[in-house]
Amino acid sequence: MYDVNKIRADFPILSREVNGKPLVYLDNGASAQKPQVVIDAVTRGYAEEYANVHRGLHYLSNLATEKYEAVRGIIARFLGAPDPDEIVYTTGTTMGINMVAYGWAMPRLQPGDEIVLSVMEHHANIVPWHFLRERQGVVLKWVDVDDQGALDPQKVIDAIGPKTKLVAITQMSNVLGTAVDVKSICHAAREKGVPVLVDGSQGAVHMPVNVADLGCDFYAITGHKLYGPSASGAIYMKRERMEEMAPFMGGGDMIREVHKDCVTYNDPPMKFEAGTPGIVQQIGLGVALDYMMGVGMEKIAAHEAELRDYAIARLEGINWLQVQGKAPGKGAIFSFTLDGAGHAHDISTILDKKGVAVRAGHHCAGPLMDHLGVSATCRASFAMYNTRDEVDKLVDALELAHDLLG
Amino acid sequence: MYDVNKIRADFPILSREVNGKPLVYLDNGASAQKPQVVIDAVTRGYAEEYANVHRGLHYLSNLATEKYEAVRGIIARFLGAPDPDEIVYTTGTTMGINMVAYGWAMPRLQPGDEIVLSVMEHHANIVPWHFLRERQGVVLKWVDVDDQGALDPQKVIDAIGPKTKLVAITQMSNVLGTAVDVKSICHAAREKGVPVLVDGSQGAVHMPVNVADLGCDFYAITGHKLYGPSASGAIYMKRERMEEMAPFMGGGDMIREVHKDCVTYNDPPMKFEAGTPGIVQQIGLGVALDYMMGVGMEKIAAHEAELRDYAIARLEGINWLQVQGKAPGKGAIFSFTLDGAGHAHDISTILDKKGVAVRAGHHCAGPLMDHLGVSATCRASFAMYNTRDEVDKLVDALELAHDLLG
Repeated sequence: MYDVNKIRADFPILSREVNGKPLVYLDNGASAQKPQVVIDAVTRGYAEEYANVHRGLHYLSNLATEKYEAVRGIIARFLGAPDPDEIVYTTGTTMGINMVAYGWAMPRLQPGDEIVLSVMEHHANIVPWHFLRERQGVVLKWVDVDDQGALDPQKVIDAIGPKTKLVAITQMSNVLGTAVDVKSICHAAREKGVPVLVDGSQGAVHMPVNVADLGCDFYAITGHKLYGPSASGAIYMKRERMEEMAPFMGGGDMIREVHKDCVTYNDPPMKFEAGTPGIVQQIGLGVALDYMMGVGMEKIAAHEAELRDYAIARLEGINWLQVQGKAPGKGAIFSFTLDGAGHAHDISTILDKKGVAVRAGHHCAGPLMDHLGVSATCRASFAMYNTRDEVDKLVDALELAHDLLG
Repeated sequence: MYDVNKIRADFPILSREVNGKPLVYLDNGASAQKPQVVIDAVTRGYAEEYANVHRGLHYLSNLATEKYEAVRGIIARFLGAPDPDEIVYTTGTTMGINMVAYGWAMPRLQPGDEIVLSVMEHHANIVPWHFLRERQGVVLKWVDVDDQGALDPQKVIDAIGPKTKLVAITQMSNVLGTAVDVKSICHAAREKGVPVLVDGSQGAVHMPVNVADLGCDFYAITGHKLYGPSASGAIYMKRERMEEMAPFMGGGDMIREVHKDCVTYNDPPMKFEAGTPGIVQQIGLGVALDYMMGVGMEKIAAHEAELRDYAIARLEGINWLQVQGKAPGKGAIFSFTLDGAGHAHDISTILDKKGVAVRAGHHCAGPLMDHLGVSATCRASFAMYNTRDEVDKLVDALELAHDLLG
């Protein structure tokens, strides 16, 4: 039994009002709210248990280190990674993918080598590869989605050619909600000897993930979308890929020895973690993932699937609204444009007056906007704590917006 | 009047016990504790005012954006930077220096080009330059300190030759406490047309900083050492240097437009800030810097100078202990080794039993350890909330350690 009201009670911000109305928070694709256990962990981290980690030999440093390092195991469990040492801490997916771009791809890819991407990637999984195009002549090969917003995995597999060195693909579109069959892609790519990086920014939030089962080489997550603190995150890296990688940032902790004329590096995962990390953030992320696993990822997915179906039914009843993305099995993420109505930004502003928080813009997905032939959409993205009643409130607010702008 | 007890009362962790003894926290060089106002700002940020920043048009996103962006002005004021847009947010000095190494130096330096460093740099200000040595044949030129641990600015200036493209230097040694006359270095380097990067990780904590007066090109700070949240930070970049810089990480926010075949970048400072940032951390950093400025940087420096003088007097009275670093005007950071006594780690462990938190190790300063001819030191580093009584407790605990290990 999924008790959404009990879950809502765990998130203090959900009981606040905005513009005199109860908050209806549907901007989860941008960032999720935090349960009290996460906030408490952060507060306790600073107020009672704070010190820098590693190399300290005093009580607080040992305590902080123990709590901080334990999160590696929690993330490994959350992602189904065989070994906690295959988890590298980051500040989020952007840093994770840049780490792979600079540390793995940059020293390895030659002019003319190809990276296969879908057209619905987020800028975090595009711009680092554009850098390689600009700086060293790497070619980006784009795979389109169909008119439902679905991505045929075979099309991705077919795009892998003799010069392909990497497939970089999202598990779930942050704009359309499209779920991608990354497992089929990973298995076919492996047969062709091509590593796959999966952008799990959205996928890991909305479905159970098992990187061993998926067979991916890299899987990046963002803590703040997973009900954790801002600037928390991690990337799973298969051991063989880790061994191939050059370090990304240089600094403390990632080295073994530093002298005037030479430097040697620490073993992975430390090799990729330079400087004082987000100690308290990562501790908070561990609590957030434990919270999600406590509720159960299958149950969260089932609750969100029910919300999705209800939202589809309600939104399809509105003939002046176009939902972008209708792929079967999609996540509860809805981008839409309105007939003859104002810009997505105007809609968003009117919704806000009713307490309904949605996002308007290109959602960091320029190539997908080009593909859809729009410059912006309005996006309502759901999370584990949203309700059917909030779908109704969204629809009511949209009807108001239509009346005002129509 | 500097009321240290009033300040101590603002830091909740300082009233806790460790191993049954009142905490004497002297590991501030590694990371500082947080005042309640910072903890409250973080808690409020998550519990009441959280959303992703930028591009949102709803109330919470606007609120978070406003608070987050206002911190740029606070940091500019704290550092004496003429324009808040010369402040780039980072997760700390390590990221700031790597950003300069990758974005400014990497595309610019040729094999044989030189970077001038002091021997007492922290690994954060060494390893990114070792990358350039390893990857593109850049030459590192090291300037030694004298036997007091002082750095003659003229020696740094003299090391600048026709092939020197950058001087990268700390304002205060994290091991010796040595304060460096970076202003003289910056002014001479500017005459020679060579930019200067200042590692302000320690300097900004212990003395008033004015980057315009110093004349540096880059000045990196770390939030967690400035009584702010972990993974907060910033780097000041002179406008001309910013204009010369390639972006570092790619992702959302740092772009203007992204298409399949091209990408254009946002204006600085956004150009250097990819992906969802450390929203709540940066808000907390702003509160921390306001707290420091509220107490007054001159007053903090004066208080710490008094602590330093008292600690010097007490430590010099111990004939079995060698303080490393006796440069005039040094900060209240004391590294020491003990005659015939056990390893620095053993000392640290015994001190911990008395509630005294110090750090033992190489302090991320390998070349300086080589210079000193030691593999590790024990370090007691003071902050704005430490007291003379805590100096006495340190000395008492050291005497105990000497008895036990001697």
